[in-house]
Amino acid sequence: MSRTVYVNGAYLAEEDATVSIFDRGFLMADGVYEVTSVLDGKLIDFDGHAVRLERSLNELDMASPMGKDELLTIHRELVRLNNIDEGMIYLQITRGAPGDRDFVFPDPETTKPTVVLFTQNKPGLADSPVAKKGIKVISIEDIRWGRRDIKTVQLLYPSMGKMMAKKAGADDAWMIENGFVTEGTSNNAYIVKDGAIITRGLSNDILHGITRAAVLRFADEAQYKVIERNFTLEEAQQADEAFITSASTFVMPVVEIDGHPVGTGTPGQVATRLRQVYLEECKKNAI
Amino acid sequence: MSRTVYVNGAYLAEEDATVSIFDRGFLMADGVYEVTSVLDGKLIDFDGHAVRLERSLNELDMASPMGKDELLTIHRELVRLNNIDEGMIYLQITRGAPGDRDFVFPDPETTKPTVVLFTQNKPGLADSPVAKKGIKVISIEDIRWGRRDIKTVQLLYPSMGKMMAKKAGADDAWMIENGFVTEGTSNNAYIVKDGAIITRGLSNDILHGITRAAVLRFADEAQYKVIERNFTLEEAQQADEAFITSASTFVMPVVEIDGHPVGTGTPGQVATRLRQVYLEECKKNAI
Repeated sequence: MSRTVYVNGAYLAEEDATVSIFDRGFLMADGVYEVTSVLDGKLIDFDGHAVRLERSLNELDMASPMGKDELLTIHRELVRLNNIDEGMIYLQITRGAPGDRDFVFPDPETTKPTVVLFTQNKPGLADSPVAKKGIKVISIEDIRWGRRDIKTVQLLYPSMGKMMAKKAGADDAWMIENGFVTEGTSNNAYIVKDGAIITRGLSNDILHGITRAAVLRFADEAQYKVIERNFTLEEAQQADEAFITSASTFVMPVVEIDGHPVGTGTPGQVATRLRQVYLEECKKNAI
Repeated sequence: MSRTVYVNGAYLAEEDATVSIFDRGFLMADGVYEVTSVLDGKLIDFDGHAVRLERSLNELDMASPMGKDELLTIHRELVRLNNIDEGMIYLQITRGAPGDRDFVFPDPETTKPTVVLFTQNKPGLADSPVAKKGIKVISIEDIRWGRRDIKTVQLLYPSMGKMMAKKAGADDAWMIENGFVTEGTSNNAYIVKDGAIITRGLSNDILHGITRAAVLRFADEAQYKVIERNFTLEEAQQADEAFITSASTFVMPVVEIDGHPVGTGTPGQVATRLRQVYLEECKKNAI
């Protein structure tokens, strides 16, 4: 049976789910998105994603098409309809389909935002075998636009980066700008040195990860020293541990960078512990 | 009567023209485009656009869905069906709709590119009243990604730039990077000083304009001195003339930059002459 997805108020079979060719998401990448994980059939960090979505919309002068409660209702309905125990819910909002192509924004009174949601069923997401062996990353230049804090659908370069990693026999790419690591293709990047967790501070240069915020809070509560500062690729290669965080990978150890093993070349204690704490705490607060 | 548009082999009423929500153009801005002008019912610079399209596809490891002849047939059929005398034809090709979202490119054997074309009827395009008084531009920071030579649908920032211009009472924005003008939001930028035409050289920093190539060729033939080099905003404000080129505006005089009149604050001789020459020559070679 096919997935049931949500498009502009309707629950549809995925084969029937379409948008106009004049949708500004399709023609101009004029849209934002969020991905929320589902564990035990419940939403992880939903509030955080809803708040960031609102911020992304505001930054682009895009009206919010619905309140948090309605958004939550749709998320839950999709979980129910598709019987998701572990997986993700993807949400995209664009500036809508004004009926013709124009660089000028359409009148929001007549052109309503396009709202699309769909589920991705991922049994075993929490108890991932990948987390037990860690991932390998390569480094690539960060040539994305300057507002990476806005979660837009301009994902061509991250997608290209993932392909570069795949061709190099790795799992993901860390992006480098002015000599410093910014982030992964769809995740925030961290290293651990002498017991301290080091990650780039928030700015327009990186995504303000919802998982990042939660993990740093839990790290703090667990008495880890957290330092928010830029770090270089060389520093990362010489670190004791490295890891990434994202809504769908939670905390994932990085064991190799550009062919160079990090620490022992196996998942480190801090990353492993943080993954465990994050999953426990998030499940407690899942809705 | 509504427009007839083209989507993946079918000629459809525009209201019925849709793409899957899983199209990578919609989810990830993984697509490229071209805009070809129509004058007297004929295509302007079609070959140039077809060659650049091929290059854009190659740069993104995307297969070309059809040859130049088939593309030409579709363009001409849309001109005929929609009775276009003056206007534009928009063409977009994306990496297709693999049926689920994934940063990894789909297998090109099973996921075929999405091909969309539609017309825009613009009577009076060549004899534009705007060209007689010129346009006003503001300057904005260029924060786009690093591969502007690939004509991708990542047009959010150019669209935001157009809105910034509109709010400032201007018509367009010139983008500035490291102190130099890169280009306009959807056009190449030029100044004229002491009889010489100055425009930024080709690199990954700017679009390799089809109209740019033709205009520089005609300028050369008309014995103008053409210098390809970076220029600053201050230099532009102190220039004798300024103008832009694009497939849909041809050659368009710029008479004001950030509130500062350029030259006499009216369309200059060089821009006016080049517009005339470009239109004459292109109409001769239109197909």
